Amino acid sequence: MTEDVRRSPERAKRLPRAVREKQILDAAVAVFSRHGYHSASMDEISDVAGVSKPMIYSYLGAKEDLFIHCIRREAGRLLQAVQTGIKPDVPPDMQLWHGLRSFYGFVAEYRESWTVLHRQALTVGGPFAGEVDALRSKAIELVSGLVVSAGARKGLAEQAEFSGEGLAAALVGAAESLADWWLDHSDVSDGVLASWLMNLIWLGFNDLVEGEVWRPTES
Amino acid sequence: MTEDVRRSPERAKRLPRAVREKQILDAAVAVFSRHGYHSASMDEISDVAGVSKPMIYSYLGAKEDLFIHCIRREAGRLLQAVQTGIKPDVPPDMQLWHGLRSFYGFVAEYRESWTVLHRQALTVGGPFAGEVDALRSKAIELVSGLVVSAGARKGLAEQAEFSGEGLAAALVGAAESLADWWLDHSDVSDGVLASWLMNLIWLGFNDLVEGEVWRPTES
Repeated sequence: MTEDVRRSPERAKRLPRAVREKQILDAAVAVFSRHGYHSASMDEISDVAGVSKPMIYSYLGAKEDLFIHCIRREAGRLLQAVQTGIKPDVPPDMQLWHGLRSFYGFVAEYRESWTVLHRQALTVGGPFAGEVDALRSKAIELVSGLVVSAGARKGLAEQAEFSGEGLAAALVGAAESLADWWLDHSDVSDGVLASWLMNLIWLGFNDLVEGEVWRPTES
Repeated sequence: MTEDVRRSPERAKRLPRAVREKQILDAAVAVFSRHGYHSASMDEISDVAGVSKPMIYSYLGAKEDLFIHCIRREAGRLLQAVQTGIKPDVPPDMQLWHGLRSFYGFVAEYRESWTVLHRQALTVGGPFAGEVDALRSKAIELVSGLVVSAGARKGLAEQAEFSGEGLAAALVGAAESLADWWLDHSDVSDGVLASWLMNLIWLGFNDLVEGEVWRPTES
């Protein structure tokens, strides 16, 4: 039966383009995540998607374009999941907590997306690494806004403006690196992961915000 | 005068191989860091090193091998700088502080090394990304040992064993991401950078070690 659906041009035509593209991208993310960019074959993607190769080329382009489309879609979904997760009317620590929960929740649910976004895109490099950099910049901007607004609430806006973006870069790097570690240690739950990072980071943010500092006890 | 030195095969022969290789690698790191892997030319590396192209090929191989040699040398220097910087007989927070100071001190002094190690190697991807991964694993191992020994001192060895490697991965990611941010914000000093990260991170580590935890105030 599946064969018939796949091979029938009439049925293929009945599906709207958006649905077709989703089928192709879902299949491509699965195949890229499993085999890596270089080893993934358009034949397998076509087979998994149930969409002919000429149709894939016509809708989303050849392999390189298809991979870029995958990265952009997954990056957009990840950012949206995190942004949706953050509740703007709760205290800053809870905002960060919800953001981290959403991030690790996304990675847990869409492990293939994260593999493509992080491991595959960085391993292949070139234009793909640029796409991941763009995602990272947006994430840093999001966290930076959170730090700066937390600082402003405490009357330390200037201090938070000065170090906020750097601290946000550090936090995003920490979250990303821990998610990467998680791919090989998936016995730990996403909630535990988020609370590790929260415990590691939050008091530090709070300190910045409270104006307390750690100082070396000797030089 | 320089021209004469470069062009004279007799002078070239007088230098020991190790000295030659150092000249080549110094030049290659400078050229790769400036132009990126793809745009860097062996002609320019040969010119900057004052070593003929055939001699470069014979000593260190073609462009891809040469780039791998660069990454390995710089990774080794960076790790050694950090390991040397850590004083094993001081409290764990001071060990981490010295490690971070050494890391950012290295990045400040050898900006080209860091650019090649981080930006170039990751942008090009392929086998180079694997080399950077190997460096990251060694750094995580180093920090993990520090966290676990700090936990053991406080009688919380088991807890530190459970989360130590994940926290170390987070810290290494934070340090790396902040160093990357620093490439575009080099008006901040290396000491300030290390203290930002120390403030962000240390209380979190300490908390783990003390057994205190941050908990969400609502779900």
